[in-house]
Amino acid sequence: MSKARAYTNIALIKYWGKRDVAEMLPYNSSLSLTLDQFYTETSVDFVDQKEDQFFFGSEAQPVSPKVKRVLDRVRSLSGRDQAAVVKTVNHVPTSAGLASSASAFAALAVAASAAADLQLSQRELSILARHGSGSASRSIFGGFVVWHAGVDDQSSFAEPITETVDFPIAVLAILVDQGRKKVLSGAGMQASVETSPFFSAWAQTAEQAIPKMEKAIANQDIAEIGALAETNAMQMHATTLSADPPFTYFAPETLKIWEIVREIRTKGLNCYLTLDAGPNPKLICQLQDIETITNYLQNRIPDLTYTLCRPGSGAQLVAK
Amino acid sequence: MSKARAYTNIALIKYWGKRDVAEMLPYNSSLSLTLDQFYTETSVDFVDQKEDQFFFGSEAQPVSPKVKRVLDRVRSLSGRDQAAVVKTVNHVPTSAGLASSASAFAALAVAASAAADLQLSQRELSILARHGSGSASRSIFGGFVVWHAGVDDQSSFAEPITETVDFPIAVLAILVDQGRKKVLSGAGMQASVETSPFFSAWAQTAEQAIPKMEKAIANQDIAEIGALAETNAMQMHATTLSADPPFTYFAPETLKIWEIVREIRTKGLNCYLTLDAGPNPKLICQLQDIETITNYLQNRIPDLTYTLCRPGSGAQLVAK
Repeated sequence: MSKARAYTNIALIKYWGKRDVAEMLPYNSSLSLTLDQFYTETSVDFVDQKEDQFFFGSEAQPVSPKVKRVLDRVRSLSGRDQAAVVKTVNHVPTSAGLASSASAFAALAVAASAAADLQLSQRELSILARHGSGSASRSIFGGFVVWHAGVDDQSSFAEPITETVDFPIAVLAILVDQGRKKVLSGAGMQASVETSPFFSAWAQTAEQAIPKMEKAIANQDIAEIGALAETNAMQMHATTLSADPPFTYFAPETLKIWEIVREIRTKGLNCYLTLDAGPNPKLICQLQDIETITNYLQNRIPDLTYTLCRPGSGAQLVAK
Repeated sequence: MSKARAYTNIALIKYWGKRDVAEMLPYNSSLSLTLDQFYTETSVDFVDQKEDQFFFGSEAQPVSPKVKRVLDRVRSLSGRDQAAVVKTVNHVPTSAGLASSASAFAALAVAASAAADLQLSQRELSILARHGSGSASRSIFGGFVVWHAGVDDQSSFAEPITETVDFPIAVLAILVDQGRKKVLSGAGMQASVETSPFFSAWAQTAEQAIPKMEKAIANQDIAEIGALAETNAMQMHATTLSADPPFTYFAPETLKIWEIVREIRTKGLNCYLTLDAGPNPKLICQLQDIETITNYLQNRIPDLTYTLCRPGSGAQLVAK
């Protein structure tokens, strides 16, 4: 039995759209920050039984096609022919509103490959995790991470820009809606790819934003990091609004938070909003401004629910 | 003294972006429905005095560059060298939340050209009104109207698709915010043109939507008219969300209404949302469904403020 832990990440330049659905290749490179406040722990054991088993907490669940795909690749790479018992637990602050597939599949990749006695490099783990969920390729690493779109299976992997965890950045994950997403991210990106006339311009613009973001990170320029991230996030959401039929992940409360974020900027503070395929915004701030910003937000929204996140570390094996 | 009345219109395929700012030429053709619930009455008198004068209601106001541009063209076309006294009154239900520049400049074009004894064709009036405000070119006509983008001053004009006013369509103009727009439409479209990487795809897609909308109108297919209008409106708003920096005309309440509109569609009713450069949505419905739809909306939003609009007539001279 091997057990691994991986943290979630927030994309500053988004992954949105699969160029190759079978191989899980994206249209554009993406760039993220691994966070320290939400992780998945997953154990894998290869045993002599007929079928794979999956437990979410103590609850047995069907083995999803994505989990099966990762397990099959591990069996194929290792020559093993056994079934896997997978047990996974999400450690998520109730207030986070953060996605779990990135941490889940990064943890699965690390645990399953170790359980099969594979000696994979970090890059090979990133490629393996990608087959479960694109964004999981980035959660293999800590800090700022870039996922190169690549052109085939072996060239589409993530790597760290910096493992630095004392970067003076903070992410406020705000919960506006705990309900299940109405349009799942996979279906949403597929609808954008197939029906938005803006999609090809999106992919090209996102790719061009990668070196700009890398430069802003190298300069520790949090205002520029935030501005680039907000612009990129809204461009991603513009591909849903321009789809046919149009749809949006914004909730009314998301727009309200964005209005307040812009107010905060008029006070001379760096505060920028990013958003994935759901209504819960994440604010990108300087660590030193966090108290001022949370006070301002709570003053405007008395029942504000949020989690303060900082840069987190990469996926790791915690038991073997 | 000549006095004219013109009604506002709601664009079903939006005008968004000037290809030529000086000549007021748009990037794409647009298509609208003239409404019956909001009009401007404007009188123009050419008199022997030094400066043009402008009265909004009983209040003297500076003559705006756009008003001066229309008056100058009338003087140039007629050979007149007199100053104009312009008096204008907006007749707007307090609950409408509708733009006034379309009706204002259509009325000004008709009144000023008549006051100068010009015998302009409807097409020439449309071109003249365009120089005040692009959407005013369409308010010269009643019913469904297409404004051909054209390639120069004389080829960029509106013309009616049908003057039919008994078309079984209704537009609910919902007021969610009476405050002044934060980004004026002219500045917003310019920012989209200059900074959205999606702008050229927008203009191309909107142009391609014109024949589809004409066909839906010919078929009196209100579901198709509404779906095309909603898709086009959201694509226009995707050009603001994808601008750098991003911005939006959506208010939180706008999204709330859109959510309810989608709920209404799940009940099998035709109800679609369109939105211009401000937060107040306009719902496109079948006339026969209006009572059911307003009841549903009022049930969800008890203090709902709205105006029921029907197809309206073109600009006309009411005194000479």
